[in-house]
Amino acid sequence: MNYRAFKLSKYPQGKITMDIFDQVSLPMPALKEGEFLVKQTHMSLDPAMRTWLQERDDSYMPPVQIGEVMRSYGVGEVVESLNPRFPAGSRVVGVTGWSEYVLGNEEMTIIDPSVSAEAVLSIFYITGLTAYAGLMKIGMPKKGETLVVTGAAGSVGSLVGQLAKAEGLRVVGIAGSDEKCKWLVDELGFDAAINYKSDNLEAQLSAAAPNGVDIFYENTGGPIQEIIFNQLNRFGRVIVCGVIADYDSAIPAKGPSWVDINLKSLRVQGFIATDYLEISDEAVSVLGNYLAQGKIQYKTHTVEGFENLPEGLMMLFKGENTGKFVVKF
Amino acid sequence: MNYRAFKLSKYPQGKITMDIFDQVSLPMPALKEGEFLVKQTHMSLDPAMRTWLQERDDSYMPPVQIGEVMRSYGVGEVVESLNPRFPAGSRVVGVTGWSEYVLGNEEMTIIDPSVSAEAVLSIFYITGLTAYAGLMKIGMPKKGETLVVTGAAGSVGSLVGQLAKAEGLRVVGIAGSDEKCKWLVDELGFDAAINYKSDNLEAQLSAAAPNGVDIFYENTGGPIQEIIFNQLNRFGRVIVCGVIADYDSAIPAKGPSWVDINLKSLRVQGFIATDYLEISDEAVSVLGNYLAQGKIQYKTHTVEGFENLPEGLMMLFKGENTGKFVVKF
Repeated sequence: MNYRAFKLSKYPQGKITMDIFDQVSLPMPALKEGEFLVKQTHMSLDPAMRTWLQERDDSYMPPVQIGEVMRSYGVGEVVESLNPRFPAGSRVVGVTGWSEYVLGNEEMTIIDPSVSAEAVLSIFYITGLTAYAGLMKIGMPKKGETLVVTGAAGSVGSLVGQLAKAEGLRVVGIAGSDEKCKWLVDELGFDAAINYKSDNLEAQLSAAAPNGVDIFYENTGGPIQEIIFNQLNRFGRVIVCGVIADYDSAIPAKGPSWVDINLKSLRVQGFIATDYLEISDEAVSVLGNYLAQGKIQYKTHTVEGFENLPEGLMMLFKGENTGKFVVKF
Repeated sequence: MNYRAFKLSKYPQGKITMDIFDQVSLPMPALKEGEFLVKQTHMSLDPAMRTWLQERDDSYMPPVQIGEVMRSYGVGEVVESLNPRFPAGSRVVGVTGWSEYVLGNEEMTIIDPSVSAEAVLSIFYITGLTAYAGLMKIGMPKKGETLVVTGAAGSVGSLVGQLAKAEGLRVVGIAGSDEKCKWLVDELGFDAAINYKSDNLEAQLSAAAPNGVDIFYENTGGPIQEIIFNQLNRFGRVIVCGVIADYDSAIPAKGPSWVDINLKSLRVQGFIATDYLEISDEAVSVLGNYLAQGKIQYKTHTVEGFENLPEGLMMLFKGENTGKFVVKF
């Protein structure tokens, strides 16, 4: 029996295109002692994927190589096992790849049967840890402060905003459509939301953050970055989670001048979730409590069909999703 | 009796020029209860002065106003006193101004008679606190790491490099002449120094910091900033103490792209010494010990004569000093 996978055929030049992936058919592996086989059911599509396709050797992990199955994480079921820690029938989350079946690995985590794959991918795995660690450990939020988050209708951004609200902050979201902004304010309880494709962004931000910006959770990059940066208060913190807008560029756009960093004692700090694996349990616990209390909610944008992965990724980078982008197969 | 002072007559457009200051003659004040009069003997000239002449209201302190005596700090002697905490004959350091005589203020600090004015201004006051707080509290240096410091032959930079050496780091200094570089390596014990006015700076830095850069103590800004930034290791820290090269510009040069901040989990943090006043005693103690052990030394570039203040400031911004710039009058 064979299964489908997508291999990287070439690196993108600028934007992601359909033709950088080859769909292939691979033979099912025969398990050796200690191995187990996972049938993936839900795969996450993430902005970080663009960074894994950059040919640079000094990032936090090496780029996906030409001819390799594309990297990803997802949820699946153990369908065959020679590993007693991961018996057949258990459900797992972990690094999987763009592949219907994957060999399991010891870093995978067994999922509580009462939690849905959507909840795991939206809240209780890398996405939740990214939101939680960035906001709480780097942002160090204090009640009454003002937070601005970009990519606010995305999986991490929507969680950051809700978590900040739950912690007593004023929250302003930046998103790419009026519909997304309406969702942020009406459904998620953000204090204000700004469509970055509209006009007079400086004035809109001043109105939405009348006491200035204390924490800027950066998910997107692009021209809005400097507008938010310019309205930071003294001792402001910037959490650089992602700068999607700049990943496509051979020469990424420059950042704001460091004069304000100096004169306003600002801190601009980047991170990736795996820097904070040691607080995974804390993140799960805090986010789980807020979820149970109804203080945070999640939404998935689900596309069905393994064959739709490349198109899904392109949709993600066009910002066509609201909430977590999941492909179900 | 009258005394001399310099008042600000207009804000600089770009570089500092002689004509932005007016020398004036002011009448000696009659002291009220609790006041004391200080005859200033040594005044410090500092890069931060350029930032006090910027017309912006969101910096860490308001700009000097037109018609006000120019702000500064210095050392002087109490010559008349109606304040028992500051008796006549005591020596003090504090915020003074470009003025031969100043009314004392409660924030002034009485100086141990055994310590010279030069040592106070170079090591035991704002300059020392700036070097110490930035390096130790923001940089969090670890033995064996590599530090690069710009403005390395200046008062803060030369102290940062020596302190880092004393703490077991590899230290690379960036300065503006071969002579200064020679002083850093031969006299202060830096591992390497680079004249930023020479060629092939990337290659020179790679050779001087073969294991990459862990801490970048930024005193100058300018094109060298990005060259150092690009060679930062994962989890690198950047201490933004000053960006002199950009203070003169109406539109300051942009900073490096945030992509590396994201992918390498970098931290870029600004500060001013007064954010760290609570560790003043710690700084004095640590720096004093290293000074006593001969692990750090200081050098002052002293100009004599009150009337030479404006020219001295221009010399400072041309980088014509090595070590702490002091005007003695």
